Amino acid sequence: MSTATPERTGGVVGARVRRHEDDRLLKGLGRFADDVNRLGQVHARIVRSTLAHGEILRIDTAEARALPGVLAVITGADLGDIPPIPIRLPRGDEPDGCLQRILPDEVRYVGEPVAAVVAADPYLAEDAAELVTVEYRELPVVLDAADGPASARMQAGFGEVDAAFSAAAHVVELDLDVGRHAAVPMEPRGLVAEYDAANGRLQVWGATKVPVFNRNVLARMLGMPAEQVRLHAMDAGGGFGARGEFYPEDLLIPWLARRLRRPVKWTEDRAENLVALNHSRQQRHRIAAAFDADARLLALRDGITHDNGAYLRTHGLLVPELTIGMLPGPYRVPAYQASVEVVLTNKTPCGTYRAPGRYEGTFAREHLLDVAADRIGIDRAEIRRRNLLRPEEIPHVRPLRALGTDMVLDAGDYPALLETALARTSGWRDEVARLRNSGRKAGYGFAVFLEKSGLGPHETADVIVEPSGRIRVHSGGTSLGQGIETVLAQIAADRLGVDHEDVQVVNGDTDLQPFGLGSWASRSTVLAGNAVDLAATAVLARARSLAARMLGAPEDLLEHAAGAFAFGDRSVALGEIAAACAPGSPYLEPGTEPGLAARRVFEVDHMTYPYGVHVALVDIDPGTGHVTVPRYLVAYEIGKAINPTLVEGQLVGGVAQGLGGALYENFHYDDQGQPQAATFMDYLMPTAAEVPGLVDTIVAEDAPSPDNPLGTKGAGEGGITAAGAALANAVRDALGLGEAVGRLPLSPQWICTELG
Amino acid sequence: MSTATPERTGGVVGARVRRHEDDRLLKGLGRFADDVNRLGQVHARIVRSTLAHGEILRIDTAEARALPGVLAVITGADLGDIPPIPIRLPRGDEPDGCLQRILPDEVRYVGEPVAAVVAADPYLAEDAAELVTVEYRELPVVLDAADGPASARMQAGFGEVDAAFSAAAHVVELDLDVGRHAAVPMEPRGLVAEYDAANGRLQVWGATKVPVFNRNVLARMLGMPAEQVRLHAMDAGGGFGARGEFYPEDLLIPWLARRLRRPVKWTEDRAENLVALNHSRQQRHRIAAAFDADARLLALRDGITHDNGAYLRTHGLLVPELTIGMLPGPYRVPAYQASVEVVLTNKTPCGTYRAPGRYEGTFAREHLLDVAADRIGIDRAEIRRRNLLRPEEIPHVRPLRALGTDMVLDAGDYPALLETALARTSGWRDEVARLRNSGRKAGYGFAVFLEKSGLGPHETADVIVEPSGRIRVHSGGTSLGQGIETVLAQIAADRLGVDHEDVQVVNGDTDLQPFGLGSWASRSTVLAGNAVDLAATAVLARARSLAARMLGAPEDLLEHAAGAFAFGDRSVALGEIAAACAPGSPYLEPGTEPGLAARRVFEVDHMTYPYGVHVALVDIDPGTGHVTVPRYLVAYEIGKAINPTLVEGQLVGGVAQGLGGALYENFHYDDQGQPQAATFMDYLMPTAAEVPGLVDTIVAEDAPSPDNPLGTKGAGEGGITAAGAALANAVRDALGLGEAVGRLPLSPQWICTELG
Repeated sequence: MSTATPERTGGVVGARVRRHEDDRLLKGLGRFADDVNRLGQVHARIVRSTLAHGEILRIDTAEARALPGVLAVITGADLGDIPPIPIRLPRGDEPDGCLQRILPDEVRYVGEPVAAVVAADPYLAEDAAELVTVEYRELPVVLDAADGPASARMQAGFGEVDAAFSAAAHVVELDLDVGRHAAVPMEPRGLVAEYDAANGRLQVWGATKVPVFNRNVLARMLGMPAEQVRLHAMDAGGGFGARGEFYPEDLLIPWLARRLRRPVKWTEDRAENLVALNHSRQQRHRIAAAFDADARLLALRDGITHDNGAYLRTHGLLVPELTIGMLPGPYRVPAYQASVEVVLTNKTPCGTYRAPGRYEGTFAREHLLDVAADRIGIDRAEIRRRNLLRPEEIPHVRPLRALGTDMVLDAGDYPALLETALARTSGWRDEVARLRNSGRKAGYGFAVFLEKSGLGPHETADVIVEPSGRIRVHSGGTSLGQGIETVLAQIAADRLGVDHEDVQVVNGDTDLQPFGLGSWASRSTVLAGNAVDLAATAVLARARSLAARMLGAPEDLLEHAAGAFAFGDRSVALGEIAAACAPGSPYLEPGTEPGLAARRVFEVDHMTYPYGVHVALVDIDPGTGHVTVPRYLVAYEIGKAINPTLVEGQLVGGVAQGLGGALYENFHYDDQGQPQAATFMDYLMPTAAEVPGLVDTIVAEDAPSPDNPLGTKGAGEGGITAAGAALANAVRDALGLGEAVGRLPLSPQWICTELG
Repeated sequence: MSTATPERTGGVVGARVRRHEDDRLLKGLGRFADDVNRLGQVHARIVRSTLAHGEILRIDTAEARALPGVLAVITGADLGDIPPIPIRLPRGDEPDGCLQRILPDEVRYVGEPVAAVVAADPYLAEDAAELVTVEYRELPVVLDAADGPASARMQAGFGEVDAAFSAAAHVVELDLDVGRHAAVPMEPRGLVAEYDAANGRLQVWGATKVPVFNRNVLARMLGMPAEQVRLHAMDAGGGFGARGEFYPEDLLIPWLARRLRRPVKWTEDRAENLVALNHSRQQRHRIAAAFDADARLLALRDGITHDNGAYLRTHGLLVPELTIGMLPGPYRVPAYQASVEVVLTNKTPCGTYRAPGRYEGTFAREHLLDVAADRIGIDRAEIRRRNLLRPEEIPHVRPLRALGTDMVLDAGDYPALLETALARTSGWRDEVARLRNSGRKAGYGFAVFLEKSGLGPHETADVIVEPSGRIRVHSGGTSLGQGIETVLAQIAADRLGVDHEDVQVVNGDTDLQPFGLGSWASRSTVLAGNAVDLAATAVLARARSLAARMLGAPEDLLEHAAGAFAFGDRSVALGEIAAACAPGSPYLEPGTEPGLAARRVFEVDHMTYPYGVHVALVDIDPGTGHVTVPRYLVAYEIGKAINPTLVEGQLVGGVAQGLGGALYENFHYDDQGQPQAATFMDYLMPTAAEVPGLVDTIVAEDAPSPDNPLGTKGAGEGGITAAGAALANAVRDALGLGEAVGRLPLSPQWICTELG
């Protein structure tokens, strides 16, 4: 159950309307990358490195080429001089030579592309790929970040940390590991590329997340003008930060299509997906806090080792930067110092995964607070009450930066939301007691977190009114399963006063919206949503002026309601006004653009900071160590929920993924760098049996963001951010540990060991 | 050879640049309707009436349906209540019930669609179509317009005609028939339609001429919002007025695609094309002129019977209207009266064919002037000199209307162009004499004509500057082989000061340019061209303002040259300015549209009137009657040639078609209304052997149109307009006839008869 959403006058913003996407998805009409088929298409298969580190001495493609039905086998030598994959959000201080090149001479992780095969069907392509033999000179592998030299170092902080620690009444320091896990979307990646030699245009289906950026990268790599490349975003079976970034295959498949003059299709299989898609999370924290005698924070310090895998991919140094930027969370921290060493290892490169840096940092900070409360001897909630920023301290300017923006915690009442969550779950403590009485190891844990969302600098949207009265929106956002088509339709409909079902949203078509920045970092509702609102507002202003001419009435006396402008008992609907904007209409001002449409940019230079509380009840079988999570709560302050049902869906889904990283998922390697979790038998994704049957949500709308007209904040990540922390705290509570758990995931093996 | 085109400062307007279209066409990369293939497509075949007039009693589709691989067989009963095909340019006085319905209960010409079959391949579809049996009740047929009642009557005129005839020194009256012939483009029609159930959108490939109008008609017939239908114009192997109008198949194929949820392809074969595509021209004129003693025209009178075939299709009454509107031509006609009876017959319906009404009317008028000159006893050129409007009489307001516009002959020196043409061909008379001396029947003939072009009311174009510096143009014109992509690229490049090869023109995509009216009536260069010029001018104004901010200089001190704005020694290119219009740029004014682009409408409420002279030398074998045309000249006043090579190409191509109608082409029927010219064995298209090896052209640019900024006039039709007239005059001259030839075509049989 969520808090009730008051009915707005506008109507549809805030309403629990059914998802537009579901109309096609529930009928089996969704179109995912592998659903795209182009006439005459051929199929690519990537040949991947079987060594974690080695120099390629020779690639023998003769046998593969000889297979009937094989059209091409290419290696790095065929590609020529193609630049490496660039960083999407560069800081400027990224180390040279860490970028990933495509089909390089030296491989640095198992799974790295070394060749590509194209054949008449995918099975043949796979068979041919197995005939490609690669001769390597083996090179030494680095697998533990502690063993490698740092490629980059970052620091952040403020205040007199050393002095605070010297003067502290209590100092608590923990060593905490966060395991290597990843987004693992249900749908692996896929691409279809087609080159039209008649007009020199290249089309690529299967984009998502950041199509325009990827279009520009691809065009640059191929030496084509950007407008000659069109990327089409599709339905996507999950993105979570990983899917939709530019990977080697995003160059290889279009390159092959242009070379062969045939549509080329590539669909990643699960084994590839587990070694090729970005991994994430793996960090080691030495975190310490200094408290005064009243358990008030004097300073916070963290020293982090960040394992980034083999390369800096498109995310560059973003995850370690976000980790240290967001670590102080919603607390009053007088002094803070954090450093991070980024180490390259011979494992799959890392990037973002839902709540990057915050999942890790929230675990470190909130676990530390639990341990500290126990050591100081105060209640675990009370230590937070004393240290959370109070509403009168908000907006809070924190002298840190995140994603290139100054950090201003914009709106909120953190203690109030904590009390709400604690009150809602107060009965759970009795349940813990009951379970313990029956011999179970039960525990209650919670964690408070700060999120960020609405990253600028801008997003663009077109709103077009058709003479039929229907509305088209061309947005730069992309559909990752989050329901953005519905949300943007609601925003446009609310502003224009039309039925949201009359609004058709097209996302992620780089021809239709060449200025889109995409959907990531919980930015779309804030950025794309407000861009739609601005464009709809501009459309409405033009419509009012046309309506005034059509009705022969002064603009300011017109009433706007139900998708029409009225003057007295006469009115003109938006569709009629659109028709009156067509060429030849007497109402269209000479020399102006025909059509009732506007393209507008929403710009913002600060992020907005939602926040929340996770509460977990765990029930551990003392015999087997099996952890069940019978109850879970996410309380989340969203500013303004455009569609509360979709926000709740985001939160519940986030919990499922957060639980995976907290209890099960871990990419482990043998000592040669061979991945040991290359199937779902070894990489433990939580299933319906492991995920809490009941995830309760509180969607609060008490602190609208002052930074955007809709007052909304992003909801994409709050369901996962504190899951590792809350579950670790609950397990520690269940096991009655005095010390910290020390790590995530708290695997079944680890639980058994702790149970003795 | 044409008159030299002076080099303009702008550069590329007026230049003989190579056609952009040829880059793909010469490489075999052109994409015509039948080149479109969609995955999973199935194939339609139309079952056509074998009777000229009959009531359908029963259609038996069972046997066809039973054929394996047949997906559907539909008849009128399946379609439900679909409105008839509307008239595209209605006058408002068209008779009720003359419109063509789709799959009707009563057939009115051989070839009328009565059912449609869809099957897995086109051969199977054709086999299945032959299994559909139709039981008819035969109804009486009308084949000669003289035998049918008039469905519509129109009149036009001014002055005291009867009084003029009474007072005349000379009256000449002729009966002249113009045969039934047609455009017969090299590429028959074709369509591929695909319906996407996921988003409710229908796409149709194979459109041309008027895609937006056809999109709207199709959407209305299907009960869909217009913006849910997207038509794609393709390369077209000739249009000539006939191809690209809305025919029954334009509804049937998309209807089937939506019904079957499969892409449906249909390609017309030649036999279908000869009975299904619009016929044209068939008229009977009783034309008379009254002259004073000095052979000056006192009045002109014409009574016309117009055979329109079975229905009023999209052209409605346009051809007969144009015939009487344009009949007085470039002459000073003090009094004029024309009437036309439009008769429906049980033959293929008629529409426009290149120079509709003018080919017919020019033949009637110019043949009459030759006969009159002979009878009065003055030179055939002299009679025209005395009667052509003199430059000081221009602009000449003629109290007639054509295509719904007032007729103002806008610019010209008709006598001068006649003298130029006569001078250029003066040597031909010696050639005639030499041929005659050698026993041949040789003749010299010429005709003066007035054309119309640049029909409004408007056309729309987008000009978009990409950060790459390349320009995109989205035009409402369509490519019919005339080179419009090249012409529009030249106009944009000339205005923007860029290389025309950096301009990419996309025509006839109803999504990209939803306001386009299309390419017909020699309107595109004038309408689409000036729209592009306006949009490019608007882009340039915005670019100047941005450049001023970028260079920190006052706008009016910036110099525009070579696609850049310069201030002193610093300059910014258009591509850089486009990049500075992107969201996030400090140069983009807040609240404005990002991007360097403009959509503009060019509006015009008058047509512009080009004119010209055709001169033909014919050489008739007195034994066989075979007519050769060793020399031919078209002199044409174009106002401003954007690309003289393309104008010359239009003129030469027009001559080839005009010669076909003058000497060979004729759709004849037996007395049951069965077409007797249903293959190229019986319908005599001129081949390379019949077409003059040397067509000389004079492209004059002495009388720019004052009605549009480019000063240009249309060139699509001037090559055909007077071909019937000039050839008829030359043949009459060769044969030494005292009387009129009486008809077109002057078929080999007729020549033989005349030769005795």
